Amino acid sequence: MADFWDDRSLTPLHVPATAASKPDQEAGSTASSTASAAVPASQVPSVATPPVSQEDLPVAKNAGKRTAAKEDKKAKKAEKLASRQKAEVPTQSDPSDPLHEKYGDPPLIQSRAVTGRKWTNILSLTPALADQEVLVRGNINAVRGKGNSAFLVLRQGTATAQAILFKDDKTVSKGMVKYASALSQESVVEVEAIVRKVDTKVEACTQSEVELKVTGIHCLSRAGPLPFTPADAARSQAELDASTGPDGEKLVGVAQDTRLDNRILDLRTPANQAIFRIQSAVGQLFRELLLSEGFQEIHTPKLIGGASEGGASVFTLQYFGQPGCLAQSPQLYKQMALMGGMDRVFEVGPVFRAENSMTHRHMTEFMGLDFEMTIHEHYFEVLEVIERLFTYLFDGLHKRWASDQEAIGKQYPFEPFRWLPNGSSHVLRMNFDEAIKILQDNGFPEAQPLEDLSTELERELGKIIKKTHNTDFYIIQRFPMAVRPFYTMPDPEDPRWSNSFDVFMRGEEIISGAQRVHDSDLLAEQAAKLGIPVASIQSYIDSFKYGAHPHGGAGVGLERVVMLFCGLNNIRKTSLFPRDPKRLTP
Amino acid sequence: MADFWDDRSLTPLHVPATAASKPDQEAGSTASSTASAAVPASQVPSVATPPVSQEDLPVAKNAGKRTAAKEDKKAKKAEKLASRQKAEVPTQSDPSDPLHEKYGDPPLIQSRAVTGRKWTNILSLTPALADQEVLVRGNINAVRGKGNSAFLVLRQGTATAQAILFKDDKTVSKGMVKYASALSQESVVEVEAIVRKVDTKVEACTQSEVELKVTGIHCLSRAGPLPFTPADAARSQAELDASTGPDGEKLVGVAQDTRLDNRILDLRTPANQAIFRIQSAVGQLFRELLLSEGFQEIHTPKLIGGASEGGASVFTLQYFGQPGCLAQSPQLYKQMALMGGMDRVFEVGPVFRAENSMTHRHMTEFMGLDFEMTIHEHYFEVLEVIERLFTYLFDGLHKRWASDQEAIGKQYPFEPFRWLPNGSSHVLRMNFDEAIKILQDNGFPEAQPLEDLSTELERELGKIIKKTHNTDFYIIQRFPMAVRPFYTMPDPEDPRWSNSFDVFMRGEEIISGAQRVHDSDLLAEQAAKLGIPVASIQSYIDSFKYGAHPHGGAGVGLERVVMLFCGLNNIRKTSLFPRDPKRLTP
Repeated sequence: MADFWDDRSLTPLHVPATAASKPDQEAGSTASSTASAAVPASQVPSVATPPVSQEDLPVAKNAGKRTAAKEDKKAKKAEKLASRQKAEVPTQSDPSDPLHEKYGDPPLIQSRAVTGRKWTNILSLTPALADQEVLVRGNINAVRGKGNSAFLVLRQGTATAQAILFKDDKTVSKGMVKYASALSQESVVEVEAIVRKVDTKVEACTQSEVELKVTGIHCLSRAGPLPFTPADAARSQAELDASTGPDGEKLVGVAQDTRLDNRILDLRTPANQAIFRIQSAVGQLFRELLLSEGFQEIHTPKLIGGASEGGASVFTLQYFGQPGCLAQSPQLYKQMALMGGMDRVFEVGPVFRAENSMTHRHMTEFMGLDFEMTIHEHYFEVLEVIERLFTYLFDGLHKRWASDQEAIGKQYPFEPFRWLPNGSSHVLRMNFDEAIKILQDNGFPEAQPLEDLSTELERELGKIIKKTHNTDFYIIQRFPMAVRPFYTMPDPEDPRWSNSFDVFMRGEEIISGAQRVHDSDLLAEQAAKLGIPVASIQSYIDSFKYGAHPHGGAGVGLERVVMLFCGLNNIRKTSLFPRDPKRLTP
Repeated sequence: MADFWDDRSLTPLHVPATAASKPDQEAGSTASSTASAAVPASQVPSVATPPVSQEDLPVAKNAGKRTAAKEDKKAKKAEKLASRQKAEVPTQSDPSDPLHEKYGDPPLIQSRAVTGRKWTNILSLTPALADQEVLVRGNINAVRGKGNSAFLVLRQGTATAQAILFKDDKTVSKGMVKYASALSQESVVEVEAIVRKVDTKVEACTQSEVELKVTGIHCLSRAGPLPFTPADAARSQAELDASTGPDGEKLVGVAQDTRLDNRILDLRTPANQAIFRIQSAVGQLFRELLLSEGFQEIHTPKLIGGASEGGASVFTLQYFGQPGCLAQSPQLYKQMALMGGMDRVFEVGPVFRAENSMTHRHMTEFMGLDFEMTIHEHYFEVLEVIERLFTYLFDGLHKRWASDQEAIGKQYPFEPFRWLPNGSSHVLRMNFDEAIKILQDNGFPEAQPLEDLSTELERELGKIIKKTHNTDFYIIQRFPMAVRPFYTMPDPEDPRWSNSFDVFMRGEEIISGAQRVHDSDLLAEQAAKLGIPVASIQSYIDSFKYGAHPHGGAGVGLERVVMLFCGLNNIRKTSLFPRDPKRLTP
């Protein structure tokens, strides 16, 4: 329902667009108006960070064209104009208006009193409430004023409702209409209203069977000039493409960097609201299943001495005069928790990677969903947990978060994720060398056993498996030892292989896991072979010297699961405030 | 049931202590034996990091008495002796023994095959399984060999069972008894056995109504010399005190630093197993209640630019050539998530404080349970959530984790936590100035309104409230503005006060919270007044410029909740691998 979000959505009401949605050449252009929708391309004024349609450009290409000084001047000008415009906006009611208590900006909400008033959620505005008085709070998604009437769309989360004011001098005064008409997009308002059933559906709103007949309206927080509106940010590529007509009308998208620079506006779109509900759901389902299988939650330190797993991709810091670093994963510590007598543990926590790479699927900070468990004899015991876990996860998302997937699909269309139903026995598993053979047989002779798979080959394999097995979810096991970390248990028959696995969604890795080495001598030997200074991980190695249970586990990248389940093209879409080598703010 | 954990626990069987539990003067003392229980004090050899009874000393006092060189020499000697002793320990069965397949160390468990065998948990060993064959895996909690018999206590988690071997030449050979008798404490063994109902309860074990008649025993992982045994670490102060008799028999405790240096052994005690089950439970209950009230889980970045909330206590690092730091709390970001259109959010994540203070309740890294929500008119809406949340939490711990509280109490006796039942209307709340008055009326004239309460006064207040109201849980609201952070909303009537609160358990603060300033001008003004460089938090301040909902929230310290609920005396007891200015490992 992306169109509900578009301020064009009010056009069915045949109300002409107001200054709030068109560049107002007389009042001067504000930053807000520059990003508005449905204006002839020729009229789009050129200001800082204009929305562009190539939304996934890592950097807004136009930005380089202007000097910082120019930007500064423009910003100052826009600010000045905005403040002049602000001065002209009525914020208080006329005391001579008999209805003056029914509108105007109230004092800052500051916990003055507990009044006992009840607020109604926009989502619950249905014909069941017809003719009742309600108190509703929301952001102004769109506003149109015309003479003696005003039309607003109020938004709360992803729910929207139409609110109307017609001057009648009994419940709605001229001043009230004027006040409402001049409200800026995204401002927070509180509305007293009567719920009215409508004859013709309000196609522009999620609550299409009712509208609010406003009897009071107060603006609690005024939105200043917007770098872009949520409506701008909510458009699908198809909408943008379709809008480039010969008549010159052009809808503009918002570049990814502009979105991320103004993330809190970007987050207000239905797709983003849904993405983060699904992110929350993945964590919830992950925990539900593991708790039900006897796992307990642990929290391991992120501040550690030495490099957690070796390698260069570690953030270092000074820790009260000694060198410290940020954990690259909870790997060593979750194993140590098992050695501390716990049988099955999981952790949900940030992991830090100082890798200087800008790709669609890497971040310098992301959420790891990790678990680790003792095993009796085989790492397949770990795989069975993973199979049950992900079947539970996918089933749960399918059943309980279907509408969120739909909301994402409106802006970012995707093929529904396919998995084989009915639990663990139906998850596809193959050995690494079998996967290589499949690739070779399908025209990829570069796939080599005993070498790692490139991202490209992984994707090709995903496509082949989707075709042959109709699943987006599968496991590859028995990876070459050479491409796994030092704590991986070698294969018992052939040390060129290892007791390890990766799990894939849509041809991209979301999980790495393995049986771990629980023998301290073998562990030290394997670490030394890879050039890891054993002294830096001595307490880890020592922890296997006091009676060690065989064990294995896995680490899941939360954002990758969300990205791939929803068929998104960039990991940054699934992180609230993503971090990459070029981005540390907001 | 701390006594189950003590290797003295086998004395009821009248089996004399073996070399494994007494310093063996002939074989030479190993590091292991030095920490053993129930030996005359005069015989306790002096080696590195000996257990001492003042377990909460931040540093083992004796450590300073020896030079590093001496320590090194001793360690080397111990190692040498240990390896000589190891060589004498039978690890393989005699091939000429007809029962040779029934004992001996198997090859490393390396995922050789999926055999379909079933293992029985020690916890489920009850008379219901009498006369059945079982396969059990566990650590050796204690072992005694005497001639043709061997007695073992096997442990899994906190469950223990007795396993016995009597030479009979049909199912148990002499070699088998010898093999079992020589197993070192904490080694992991796999035992085939028949479950036998016992006539006299095995008081030494949690599974007191049965024992295991061993028919096969294989050691999967041999424990080397132990710095201390879990039994050493599991003793209560009362046990230690009581053991100091005129007969010279003395039980020794383990100093806190020794525990933390060898945390994975320390964690194997029943009290520690229980503490971390309760820690897991607190997180689980926190999420259960908040999810049921419409909150969603978010994850905010820990790597941030600038200092998150000002002040010196921030860890800084280099982030790809620009200065970065670790978030001191998710405060600013959880508010920004609300400004991104979310209505109620929570986060469970690490927070980092570079405070150079060694106290019983501060760590440099701990887990924050944070939530933030929009409010309609008053921050009491936040307090109501807290009241429901903690009533749910305490009820849940009381009902579902009672046995864990009991296990903790055996080692660290504590008065059960008291809270007023029946939900929010029964939670005690008072204004800050009322709390000051209570203190003044009870002989603490130093308590001053408009000044912060010292930790000591907070504790005194806790005692008074416990006496007068019989509750360990209460809320103090309307704190002086001067002692709260810049983003706190001032009181609407009197700006010397603020819309903020702290929540207390047993007289110690576990939560800080408030209504936040959602007006960007007021926010910038308050930040500037406190000398916070506004530029460093510009994107935070800007996030209130696009229509901001009134909101409030709170942050809970997970480890403090666990510590205070269980009446523990040190926060380090409730963190798996605690971090303080002097500790970055393990």
